[in-house]
Amino acid sequence: MDARAMKTETRPQTGAAGELPPWPVVAVYGAGAVGCYFGARLAEAGAPVTLIARPHHVDAIRAEGLLFESGGRQHRVAVAADTGTDPVRNADIVLFCVKTRDTPSGGAELRPLLKPGAIVVSLQNGVDNVPRLRETGVDALGAVVYVAASMAGPGHLLHAGRGDLVIGEYGTTTRHGTPPFDEATSFDGPTSFDGTPSPRTALISGLFERAGVGCKPVGDVRAELWTKLVMNCVFNAMSALGHSHYGPLVERPDTRAVARDLVEECVAVARAEGVAVADADTLYEAALRLGQAMAPATSSTEQDLSLGRPTEIDSLNGYVTARGEALGVATPVNRALAALVRVQELALR
Amino acid sequence: MDARAMKTETRPQTGAAGELPPWPVVAVYGAGAVGCYFGARLAEAGAPVTLIARPHHVDAIRAEGLLFESGGRQHRVAVAADTGTDPVRNADIVLFCVKTRDTPSGGAELRPLLKPGAIVVSLQNGVDNVPRLRETGVDALGAVVYVAASMAGPGHLLHAGRGDLVIGEYGTTTRHGTPPFDEATSFDGPTSFDGTPSPRTALISGLFERAGVGCKPVGDVRAELWTKLVMNCVFNAMSALGHSHYGPLVERPDTRAVARDLVEECVAVARAEGVAVADADTLYEAALRLGQAMAPATSSTEQDLSLGRPTEIDSLNGYVTARGEALGVATPVNRALAALVRVQELALR
Repeated sequence: MDARAMKTETRPQTGAAGELPPWPVVAVYGAGAVGCYFGARLAEAGAPVTLIARPHHVDAIRAEGLLFESGGRQHRVAVAADTGTDPVRNADIVLFCVKTRDTPSGGAELRPLLKPGAIVVSLQNGVDNVPRLRETGVDALGAVVYVAASMAGPGHLLHAGRGDLVIGEYGTTTRHGTPPFDEATSFDGPTSFDGTPSPRTALISGLFERAGVGCKPVGDVRAELWTKLVMNCVFNAMSALGHSHYGPLVERPDTRAVARDLVEECVAVARAEGVAVADADTLYEAALRLGQAMAPATSSTEQDLSLGRPTEIDSLNGYVTARGEALGVATPVNRALAALVRVQELALR
Repeated sequence: MDARAMKTETRPQTGAAGELPPWPVVAVYGAGAVGCYFGARLAEAGAPVTLIARPHHVDAIRAEGLLFESGGRQHRVAVAADTGTDPVRNADIVLFCVKTRDTPSGGAELRPLLKPGAIVVSLQNGVDNVPRLRETGVDALGAVVYVAASMAGPGHLLHAGRGDLVIGEYGTTTRHGTPPFDEATSFDGPTSFDGTPSPRTALISGLFERAGVGCKPVGDVRAELWTKLVMNCVFNAMSALGHSHYGPLVERPDTRAVARDLVEECVAVARAEGVAVADADTLYEAALRLGQAMAPATSSTEQDLSLGRPTEIDSLNGYVTARGEALGVATPVNRALAALVRVQELALR
């Protein structure tokens, strides 16, 4: 551990003593904008949080705290920061926040460090981080992250909107105490186990809610992950390839027709995956509303291409295409958009 | 007519007198790079040609002739030029060379000027210029133009490659002296009337060949037009949206798969139109060869978007999409690419 690292054990434990349990120890692994946002919210509420981040952020956060800017206002959040992974050894909860392309290497690094009973939560883009973490021997909860945030400079978090989560188990393979189907439906309680959060989901959700962060617990997070993926498949590549804000994409009949094709292909793949997403009509209408609500926005893919950075297209339209190929579902429009984004990435290098 | 216009009647008539008939009078309507190239070739051979062009080109051509640059060499071609349309009144042959979007206005301007028996030849991109000309009351031959040329400055033609034509009647509605099907197949001659050029096709083809311009006469030019359209649908939008040369588009498995989808959609629409294009396998292989042969090229659509100019996408992937919709043939990939090019056009304005 870096000699200058704040010891998480020395941080004050807030919360009304005797009423609330002590905060668990939290490590944020790969603290970029998303990790800094949720880590800072937990730290402000009193949780002992360590942000594991790049050196220039760590230096700034140690010197002056995290500069948290939101809605035109700034304040500083005192939070531990480290460039090394030692804080993971002591963590009860690890928020896993690396870029999707770093999921395998991150999981491999985490696995030997995790203490027994530690809960890992993937706060990442893309729908397949949890199974990819499992391949490294790390079990994790999945989360859908709704936050607009970026790092505006060393230790400087710029929060632009929202900041809430949906959290749950990933699929059916790690259901905790799953009752038989008959039993689940014969009670006067929840009729679908998919809607019943696991105990660890409820625990994590409760911690975020205690810190004032909206966190909806669900049984199977995959439907929510795929719903967000469908929206991203509609807007990310089209915004990037058309050099367009979201507004025109949902106003023009031709791009609306493309959006409809993209939604239908995604829904077909999700259903073939066994994920209970809504039907194409519902998701198409949701996409149109999203595009209207975010008319002036451009996508992260557009921003990545504009800045000559690699995109996350292989976790978006490229992922749907790959899963479609594996499952025998045709995705010609997603494939075309993914291929063109990849070609443009090459052209930029 | 502009007072400084050279009189086409005063140009020398070359060709061995007594052996070859006199050259017909030629007007090139909308002389950009394509019109200047073929007009200059005819003029050099001795035909009385007038280039009807924009003022800055006309001024330069009148002052010093057309500067013809090809293969690193330059020479000047003496050829008449005019900003007005009067030379059409005297023309036996009109080469119609305007941008496809100007076909209706151009046809309307031409119609009252054409003398009886004048032959109009469309030397344009796109497959539907002849029917659109017919809507203005102008009948025309169709041609597929294979030339790489651009205007490098006022009166300065830069020729980069090829320079040949395929020419023929457009479809079946203007077949001249069409024999009944039985008769056409029962002779020991051509078994398909589509392969037999009409008399006026043979006439025009003969003139170009006399000027040293390769010109293949066919019965129905639509299959050749659609074959070129398929190639353009593969490369134009992909090159533009991917900011890519042709080479990577045919080397990468993902973009090859998109090319295959584009070809299949185009062939399905062409067949529904009743146009006898080759099958998708054949045209896909042809596209791969073309991409390899022209690996360093980028498309005119890419160049248009880069320069902030409107593209001809509605004559390319957009045309296939519109015809597909009219004929009940799904073209999702062509539709997506056309829509994204259009959105980018808007974004550039």
